[in-house]
Amino acid sequence: MSQRKASEALRDEIRSGAFDRPTAGQAPGFVQANLVVVPKAYAYDFLLFCQRNPKPCPLLEVIDAGEVAPRRLAPTADIRSDVPRYRVWIKGELADEPKDVRDVWRDDFVSFLLGCSFSFEKPLLDAGLEVRYISCGGNVSMYRTNIACREAGPFAGPMVVSMRPFRPADALKATLITGALPQVHGAPIHQGDPAEIGITDIARPDYGDAQPINDGELPVFWACGVTPQAVLLNAKLPIAITHAPGHMFVSDINENELRWFSESVR
Amino acid sequence: MSQRKASEALRDEIRSGAFDRPTAGQAPGFVQANLVVVPKAYAYDFLLFCQRNPKPCPLLEVIDAGEVAPRRLAPTADIRSDVPRYRVWIKGELADEPKDVRDVWRDDFVSFLLGCSFSFEKPLLDAGLEVRYISCGGNVSMYRTNIACREAGPFAGPMVVSMRPFRPADALKATLITGALPQVHGAPIHQGDPAEIGITDIARPDYGDAQPINDGELPVFWACGVTPQAVLLNAKLPIAITHAPGHMFVSDINENELRWFSESVR
Repeated sequence: MSQRKASEALRDEIRSGAFDRPTAGQAPGFVQANLVVVPKAYAYDFLLFCQRNPKPCPLLEVIDAGEVAPRRLAPTADIRSDVPRYRVWIKGELADEPKDVRDVWRDDFVSFLLGCSFSFEKPLLDAGLEVRYISCGGNVSMYRTNIACREAGPFAGPMVVSMRPFRPADALKATLITGALPQVHGAPIHQGDPAEIGITDIARPDYGDAQPINDGELPVFWACGVTPQAVLLNAKLPIAITHAPGHMFVSDINENELRWFSESVR
Repeated sequence: MSQRKASEALRDEIRSGAFDRPTAGQAPGFVQANLVVVPKAYAYDFLLFCQRNPKPCPLLEVIDAGEVAPRRLAPTADIRSDVPRYRVWIKGELADEPKDVRDVWRDDFVSFLLGCSFSFEKPLLDAGLEVRYISCGGNVSMYRTNIACREAGPFAGPMVVSMRPFRPADALKATLITGALPQVHGAPIHQGDPAEIGITDIARPDYGDAQPINDGELPVFWACGVTPQAVLLNAKLPIAITHAPGHMFVSDINENELRWFSESVR
């Protein structure tokens, strides 16, 4: 009998309702993804938004209308039940936070799975870097910037970034490590003075928790997967579905495979 | 007075009809691109096809319906007149090969500009490698393979590859050089035995000219921009427009900027 992957076993638990928590640290080594679901009428514009903004929106896979399994990321999954907690948005307002979206699912729904910074933090830790918010507990600090995303149809808005402080030499290491992983936001988009990208108070993040920045450290800023969610809500679609924060889709792709993901043709 | 770019000057000549030849070697250093234009009704599926097949379809920019200038690649261009020779396809059949497509243009046309292997050959030559078909004259050898592209709507078909022979050590160099340029097909998809990817006679390419392969050389295969054109014709759309072979769109982006193209957020 072939061994089932840890990701498949976790998705079984999620599907049955037994697992209903954030996915950080679960099925270690498997790529986790952000989820955005929109009706097909909006799918072209959202796909184009991702194409124009690959830094905040590193698209891993699109599940087309009428299908529920991501063929590449997890062919045995069902996107309607395999995320531990969903958010259902009606005209940009949170309407429900269910464990399953089968009852609201429609055949014209298109699902977008986007890379997540979880996948680059393991390589940073492996390189001996301290990821401050992990050391401190809590969530990474995230900020709205004055960098406008490139628009597509109704999808527009500022880029959101996550921040991790590093000493200058470690910021260089972190840049090389994440720069090799464009499928999960790639290299930072800024380092140093927060005001240059429109952040007025680094101690007060727009999302997540504040983190201490020690003397001699630079704040380093990565494009963040909260961007497409913020842009989605701003567009006030009749209906849209996302994962609940921290409750990610767990794929069958090993994090090390990400380096090869866009190169693979079979 | 600011200096106009060589690419802008060339596009002026093309637009006026004075320049009506293949663009190879013109405006050296500027990125040239493949063009595919489809009605908006098919744009989602074609965009999804490119997302699923980034090796043969490295999408640089989409000009949305109602616009004619690629904002990033060449903001002063007009895609209806700035390609030296177009092909107009009706239900997959060549209907016309005009110098300008203003008379058939519709407000619902969406234009896709895709990276072209011209942009990786200069770095190969700069590294001291011999690119055989350039030494010999003629066009690069291209072959249909048994590698199926990932389908999207009506767009489906085999991947087409281009082949350049190298000694094994030079094949390694060529892999590193092109692997750093995913915007123009990236690393090779195969090297060695042509039969492994369904090529039965290396001496008889499906497109372009045969090239000599010397003793001790490996044929090295790159995903080719002919793939989306073949797939497009196969889909037999009511109307579609492409560039004529070798008559590319010349952008204002320097070839060296390609390395940074997907990273740029302003």
